[in-house]
Amino acid sequence: MFDSPTLIVNETISRNNIRAMVEKCNKLNIGFRPHFKTHQSHEVGRWFRDYGVDRIAVSSVPMAEYFAGDQWNDITIAFPFVRQQAMKINKLSSQVKLNLIVSSLDNAKTLSNLIASKVYVQIEIDTGQGRSGIMVNDYSGIERIIEVLLSKSHTHFCGFLTHAGHSYQAIKDDLNKLNASALNLLKQLKKKWIKSFPNLIVSYGDTPTSMVCNSFDGIDELRPGNFVFFDMQQVYQGVCSTNNIAIAMVCPLVAVYPEQSKAIIWAGAIHFSKDFYLDEQGQKSFGAICKLNPDLTWSKPIKGLYLESLSQEHGVIRAKEQAALTAIEECEQLAILPAHSCLSVDCMRKYWIAGKGFFHTMDH
Amino acid sequence: MFDSPTLIVNETISRNNIRAMVEKCNKLNIGFRPHFKTHQSHEVGRWFRDYGVDRIAVSSVPMAEYFAGDQWNDITIAFPFVRQQAMKINKLSSQVKLNLIVSSLDNAKTLSNLIASKVYVQIEIDTGQGRSGIMVNDYSGIERIIEVLLSKSHTHFCGFLTHAGHSYQAIKDDLNKLNASALNLLKQLKKKWIKSFPNLIVSYGDTPTSMVCNSFDGIDELRPGNFVFFDMQQVYQGVCSTNNIAIAMVCPLVAVYPEQSKAIIWAGAIHFSKDFYLDEQGQKSFGAICKLNPDLTWSKPIKGLYLESLSQEHGVIRAKEQAALTAIEECEQLAILPAHSCLSVDCMRKYWIAGKGFFHTMDH
Repeated sequence: MFDSPTLIVNETISRNNIRAMVEKCNKLNIGFRPHFKTHQSHEVGRWFRDYGVDRIAVSSVPMAEYFAGDQWNDITIAFPFVRQQAMKINKLSSQVKLNLIVSSLDNAKTLSNLIASKVYVQIEIDTGQGRSGIMVNDYSGIERIIEVLLSKSHTHFCGFLTHAGHSYQAIKDDLNKLNASALNLLKQLKKKWIKSFPNLIVSYGDTPTSMVCNSFDGIDELRPGNFVFFDMQQVYQGVCSTNNIAIAMVCPLVAVYPEQSKAIIWAGAIHFSKDFYLDEQGQKSFGAICKLNPDLTWSKPIKGLYLESLSQEHGVIRAKEQAALTAIEECEQLAILPAHSCLSVDCMRKYWIAGKGFFHTMDH
Repeated sequence: MFDSPTLIVNETISRNNIRAMVEKCNKLNIGFRPHFKTHQSHEVGRWFRDYGVDRIAVSSVPMAEYFAGDQWNDITIAFPFVRQQAMKINKLSSQVKLNLIVSSLDNAKTLSNLIASKVYVQIEIDTGQGRSGIMVNDYSGIERIIEVLLSKSHTHFCGFLTHAGHSYQAIKDDLNKLNASALNLLKQLKKKWIKSFPNLIVSYGDTPTSMVCNSFDGIDELRPGNFVFFDMQQVYQGVCSTNNIAIAMVCPLVAVYPEQSKAIIWAGAIHFSKDFYLDEQGQKSFGAICKLNPDLTWSKPIKGLYLESLSQEHGVIRAKEQAALTAIEECEQLAILPAHSCLSVDCMRKYWIAGKGFFHTMDH
């Protein structure tokens, strides 16, 4: 059916992932603002609406524009303010409730100078990832940023946002510890400012903590994204099982070399990107190898096979034992569960949904 | 001028790279079939024509179609035959001289069964990379493939093709050794079949060997691609200098954290992909940090800074010493030389050429 590498999304699995996260947030009585950077699609975004979701996070101004164009009216751009995007922000903030983040004092000053329309602003807090944001205990720095925001009538300080992205390096057992530590720091932060700003919120939550942890004391909203599709990195972090993965790369099997315990597929770095995971034996792999079923679902991953290397358009499948190759040698196509679904989606920029056809993701 | 991450190509540098490779091939009296997978652009392809190039290599059938659409009439698809692409190949081969490769006996049989129009076929030889192709010393396997090709009147066996891709892992001093070893194996192979097929050719050559080595005895054509733009991986392999790099990612500088010796840019894995290189101190880096000049050229890389990590849209610049940050802290934008230009081009799918504007690469 497909003549070249093609991403397939299984709507049933994806909707189950969405529903489970909505139910978890409802049960915990915590706000849910899913991050749409993983799927980047109007179509998949609409699935969230079916479960009552009415606010989202995105990772850029163009992505906010894209989803504003499909009737999303409450959007957090979970990336520090970019001065070059000020004109677009000024326009967009007149159309939707736009929440921005600032990640340093200078960043806040620049925003304050360039933004002329009503925006809500959260301060990005670094709770240990070390990527961007103000250190969680830098109260004087935070105070100065709040002052900058209060100096303009249209920049509304509305709380704190953090991405505990170091959770992606943690294994399951460490996630609760990491989570408890972050919550504790954020609770103190909130306590310090809640009296002056009784409506402030704390936005938190990546897929690993949102899935594995069950206490989010002091947190007002969760912001996971990857869970809509999941991937093999999440499987080997202990966050989900392969049954939860809603996306696979269907690709031609080109040649099998039994004597070298390897096979070549047409699907490489321009299809998957170059993220990988380590399997249970510590073997680096760029994806898990499955058989494609006639109805375009896929089998469980075939034991003993892994995606050893990617070049621009080639993938090399290696068999830990030669016998494992027999499972695929008659196949014309395979389905590969990607290491990192967000980047594979971004590489492909369209996917096929059974019964519906192809859907393009946003234009870059 | 740019409000989001933007790839810029310096036409002067790129044309110098092209001219130098053309002159080298002319001097060595060896055919030149540049690989167009790096730039994927009609515009840049036309620069090659200005230096007399009339044949190209590509990495997929869609890429062959794309360049056939811009009057390239002699195209090698340097990727094993893909059965799902047979219909497209049958059509394309009636329009241009199409050279295919087969990488196993089964692959050759499939081609022979599905291709109904005149094509030229080379056998892909593995001279040590271990990716795809028949082992160089498997003479009986090669003989059987030739028989399969000869059994049809329209599949013309025309020689051997190899990609010594393991050269990308070799450092400069080892490249000549690797090259000599590959040439020796290919020479024996050629000797075995040249009497029966006096017109057969041996196609060879990636950017590292084509740049560094000066002997290609027995080789009929070189097929490098990356040299059109180069990148930091090539610099640290000793293949080129940073002056030869013809491409840079211009991106917003978002926040500087002097006390943490780091800065945040808007440009991440969806812009650069996730390839990296090791610098002279063995430090992993995803790109080299330069200042952007007002005329949209760029400075030499700033010493002491490196691109430490990439997430989806964030890049983290780290300073080996805090003082190195002072060079950039007043900048609104930076120019980053990518680790791997082929993948950055594929991520971005368009680039800006000074004096000309934006050019899109081929559609996927």
